[in-house]
Amino acid sequence: MKYNINYKLYLVTDRNILIEKSLETAVAEAIEGGVKIVQLREKDISSLEFYKTALKLKEITTQYNIPLIINDRLDIALAVDAEGVHLGQRDLPCSIAREIIGENKIIGVSAATVEEAKKAEVDGADYIGVGALFPTNTKQNTRAVSIERLTEIKKSVSIPVVAIGGINESNVYLLKSTNIDGIAVVSAILGKKDIQSAAMNLLCKI
Amino acid sequence: MKYNINYKLYLVTDRNILIEKSLETAVAEAIEGGVKIVQLREKDISSLEFYKTALKLKEITTQYNIPLIINDRLDIALAVDAEGVHLGQRDLPCSIAREIIGENKIIGVSAATVEEAKKAEVDGADYIGVGALFPTNTKQNTRAVSIERLTEIKKSVSIPVVAIGGINESNVYLLKSTNIDGIAVVSAILGKKDIQSAAMNLLCKI
Ligand code: NI
Repeated sequence: MKYNINYKLYLVTDRNILIEKSLETAVAEAIEGGVKIVQLREKDISSLEFYKTALKLKEITTQYNIPLIINDRLDIALAVDAEGVHLGQRDLPCSIAREIIGENKIIGVSAATVEEAKKAEVDGADYIGVGALFPTNTKQNTRAVSIERLTEIKKSVSIPVVAIGGINESNVYLLKSTNIDGIAVVSAILGKKDIQSAAMNLLCKI
Repeated sequence: MKYNINYKLYLVTDRNILIEKSLETAVAEAIEGGVKIVQLREKDISSLEFYKTALKLKEITTQYNIPLIINDRLDIALAVDAEGVHLGQRDLPCSIAREIIGENKIIGVSAATVEEAKKAEVDGADYIGVGALFPTNTKQNTRAVSIERLTEIKKSVSIPVVAIGGINESNVYLLKSTNIDGIAVVSAILGKKDIQSAAMNLLCKI
């Protein structure tokens, strides 16, 4: 059975911006602050390290009954029985991923255009991640997406739409008119000393 | 049903050493020359590119009825229905991979010690790749394995043992005494202009 997902405040991990705490601690604090779904994103580590990190996070997210989504690596998602996988446009095609992972898991797809968003929906995606809305340092090779484009994308699909890219407590109000289902953040939560408060503050402003 | 695998001449790919031909052409020529099993090894490419390359190779290996093994990425192996996956010591644990990929697929595990080889066998590996036997430029972070150690490893397990690492037509005779089941090569075949002849020559000297 697929979960009824709350996309309102979606945390994407980046271990490089953590201030004096482990990724597990940071994620637990973010969940305590109101994060509803967590995506583990790792680059440039071995599959074994990725797997071990995913295992640790899965323990925490299970404890809080929060879905864990694995970025890109379907095999890691399967290995830790994560709730889903998030696919970029340079990752495995959504339709192939769906065949492998089955109907009961969540698949998210990154989209920067209406065309990509519609294709993702047809290919079986459960939600769409749209960005980058604002300039960001935590991910390279992002494409800029305007608020107008985001609004168009939201209107063009019936699955949930989550905005990502440089969203923080100062600019989140700009997205109010778009009718999106949630925001995904990295540094606006993980880059703060008080992670729990950062999550709570964001949640109030969405 | 699991294939009856011939490990005698095992080709591991490296697109960076190809001389004026595509990976698909090179692999087809190598198979024509006598290669019995092919491992696709890719680093630093997107999952989508890895998948597309694997799809192309799968077409060729299927045509020749040769098993295709995917390095590290279990998800890519599943996505193209490859015959198996090869796991290094920094990849997913063999026991976890076996649970995901099932009993009918091949799992190879890299080992540089008797302990690692025995563990791989217990964990459900179908064969062991042992190296690096000789200095090599095509893979970084390899550990040196002596011919004595290789002989010990071969004696310590009952699954097939394939030697890898800098093996070529000039030094392959040094492995004759080890009783191993095959050799895995990269540049000794793919680095040659006449790939088919290179494979044939190696096969005669094993
Ligand atoms: Ni890897």
